[in-house]
Amino acid sequence: MNTIYITRRETFNGAHKLWQEEWSEEKNWEVFGKCSNKNWHGHNFQLFVTVKGVPDENTGFVMNLKTLSQILKEKVIEPLDHKNLNLDVPFFKGKMASTENLAIAIWDEIYDIIAKNGGELAKIKLVETENNYVNYYGGKEPF
Amino acid sequence: MNTIYITRRETFNGAHKLWQEEWSEEKNWEVFGKCSNKNWHGHNFQLFVTVKGVPDENTGFVMNLKTLSQILKEKVIEPLDHKNLNLDVPFFKGKMASTENLAIAIWDEIYDIIAKNGGELAKIKLVETENNYVNYYGGKEPF
Amino acid sequence: MNTIYITRRETFNGAHKLWQEEWSEEKNWEVFGKCSNKNWHGHNFQLFVTVKGVPDENTGFVMNLKTLSQILKEKVIEPLDHKNLNLDVPFFKGKMASTENLAIAIWDEIYDIIAKNGGELAKIKLVETENNYVNYYGGKEPF
Amino acid sequence: MNTIYITRRETFNGAHKLWQEEWSEEKNWEVFGKCSNKNWHGHNFQLFVTVKGVPDENTGFVMNLKTLSQILKEKVIEPLDHKNLNLDVPFFKGKMASTENLAIAIWDEIYDIIAKNGGELAKIKLVETENNYVNYYGGKEPF
Amino acid sequence: MNTIYITRRETFNGAHKLWQEEWSEEKNWEVFGKCSNKNWHGHNFQLFVTVKGVPDENTGFVMNLKTLSQILKEKVIEPLDHKNLNLDVPFFKGKMASTENLAIAIWDEIYDIIAKNGGELAKIKLVETENNYVNYYGGKEPF
Amino acid sequence: MNTIYITRRETFNGAHKLWQEEWSEEKNWEVFGKCSNKNWHGHNFQLFVTVKGVPDENTGFVMNLKTLSQILKEKVIEPLDHKNLNLDVPFFKGKMASTENLAIAIWDEIYDIIAKNGGELAKIKLVETENNYVNYYGGKEPF
Repeated sequence: MNTIYITRRETFNGAHKLWQEEWSEEKNWEVFGKCSNKNWHGHNFQLFVTVKGVPDENTGFVMNLKTLSQILKEKVIEPLDHKNLNLDVPFFKGKMASTENLAIAIWDEIYDIIAKNGGELAKIKLVETENNYVNYYGGKEPF
Repeated sequence: MNTIYITRRETFNGAHKLWQEEWSEEKNWEVFGKCSNKNWHGHNFQLFVTVKGVPDENTGFVMNLKTLSQILKEKVIEPLDHKNLNLDVPFFKGKMASTENLAIAIWDEIYDIIAKNGGELAKIKLVETENNYVNYYGGKEPF
Repeated sequence: MNTIYITRRETFNGAHKLWQEEWSEEKNWEVFGKCSNKNWHGHNFQLFVTVKGVPDENTGFVMNLKTLSQILKEKVIEPLDHKNLNLDVPFFKGKMASTENLAIAIWDEIYDIIAKNGGELAKIKLVETENNYVNYYGGKEPF
Repeated sequence: MNTIYITRRETFNGAHKLWQEEWSEEKNWEVFGKCSNKNWHGHNFQLFVTVKGVPDENTGFVMNLKTLSQILKEKVIEPLDHKNLNLDVPFFKGKMASTENLAIAIWDEIYDIIAKNGGELAKIKLVETENNYVNYYGGKEPF
Repeated sequence: MNTIYITRRETFNGAHKLWQEEWSEEKNWEVFGKCSNKNWHGHNFQLFVTVKGVPDENTGFVMNLKTLSQILKEKVIEPLDHKNLNLDVPFFKGKMASTENLAIAIWDEIYDIIAKNGGELAKIKLVETENNYVNYYGGKEPF
Repeated sequence: MNTIYITRRETFNGAHKLWQEEWSEEKNWEVFGKCSNKNWHGHNFQLFVTVKGVPDENTGFVMNLKTLSQILKEKVIEPLDHKNLNLDVPFFKGKMASTENLAIAIWDEIYDIIAKNGGELAKIKLVETENNYVNYYGGKEPF
């Protein structure tokens, strides 16, 4: 079977800070450094979502990228874009706002709806800066 | 064994359209949207070809990148560059011109000749736009 | 006066060919090479539009980028995206489809409407591939 | 004389919002849209600083890029990186936090110290996203 | 378990040549071409280091990227940046200076110290030019 | 007149060092730092060459980019690619190997031949790293 992987990129701009409520300001500074600035900082995030499948005979598509893009815009970009990741995002409330945790939360938010649309979510890559990014595979083996 | 993976990028500029002959114009528009424009559109494609192997003791190479590049230029870039993907490409005739199908067709076109030159084709990444790309691993497990 | 320059990037994917109707096929091939392929080829074009002005006291804006982006989407991206530049574009009909001529045609298409919205069009950069682009300043001195 | 222009890129990540205090929330939303989110958003800014001069006979340098980078790090990156542009930046207090205004403020902050180090500041390019940037030439003719 | 993968990019600029001492000049030229130029050539290398782990409950981190970056700067960038890869690098002495071999040598240099700091090195990507790069997974299955 | 500017990018990989023969090793280190490493270092240089003109009525071209690319390959890339900039380049012998001086030397090498082919060289941009580049306009006013 010709299993293949398609990837869609979307972007969003958000503010956040790394801050552990149960720690002192000193401890937060020691661990998170300037990322703990109480007045926030922000990033141009790039999200790459990879879906796995076999190309359909009629369309040549694993999944229509228009559909995938609409799902991402509604479920991820709308709640995150031009938002404060610590304060404004229903599906991310109360979590440490690390890129790792955000990637996992995005996975959980879109896995089922992608499945309902005939795709299988395979990988999320979340790029925070040109020097830092994370990959998540739903806890499964990476690729 | 120090198995390692080398990747070569090549680029080509092609025209295509997404059009299912057995469907009406309306159905084509409904599924493919502006990609079904009968007068074609096009892209600057980027092709990343990954070959797997163990570095040779004398050269430090998995495979000489000059050889890999020559194979790609002859077998892929020459037939695809500045061409119409639906009309002009012998090894892609009669197929739905999706990026998924093109990646699979390129794999089939170069797998054997890379093997004859001592490499093992492991992955093809075909980038259509800055927002869309596909990965293909010959139907094997991805990485 | 704090004159400053803002730039907005938009993208579109089009097909075209370089073909001079008054020339023979041989002459076309000699001058335009593979760009003259009669079945078309295409590109992911990037358009950078620069507008000149003094930041408004209330907004800090030379011009609202939302407005600029809407103008570009309506006047340029809609007519060009997923289109055949030689056949489908009302404002580019009958012109040699070189990147130079397209940049000039885009300038002429948007100069007045940007002026009506309080900006002064200063520069167009049209990127055809990672190796080729053109800059146009309305025939005025470049920057 | 061989006048030449050298450019140094530095990056910083900041939070900001576009908010005019003298306007109602509705008016702010109408003009600034999602950029007016009261809980902030942010960006990976890229700053390109261009200095003009004649290469020194002994060094071949217009200005030692190490010196230029140190000036930028001390005067611009340190105050802006991982900061809130509306709240945390002494030289930007009380200004509308548009990219235009920030570029002008950075120019004013570094012009003299670059001159003292033998260079002439010629241009600032401040990139907010892959789609938006501003250029400032000190109010002088652009290039 | 939410195993996730974080990646840090670092850059270095080095000179090298591809030259097999046991071969004649002709043989070296035949195999390595212009890469065998006896007076060296060089590259802006990009190193992407991927570490695997489960996000810590308090920090949301697989591993503090500041720690990872410090390890890379001390163990890899300091010895390689602005150096001659064939002559100046203690941990690479006597090896064919191919990108493949360098990636393997970097893996061996940092695997243990990353483990001591609570991370598990999972992948190295070493980019030599925009057209060539290698991936290494410690000889294990790729991803 | 519709004066327009076309730009062609070419790349080359070279080794160099910054070293003033008339200075002591200490003085060289003090001024040039790690760039003075006696065993060389290197870069992936990107050269952007801009030519000015009016589009030809028949071709829509300021200058055929194939011609421009051939000139650059023969006059610049061939002598510089995979070479030592201090030792191997006839037209750069005896000069301090700064990026500034190299940009000026490239200008002098190609100005006349571009003129003979109907173009007017207007600008050279020479990118040394993602953080450093120089622009040269033949000593004329910049743009």
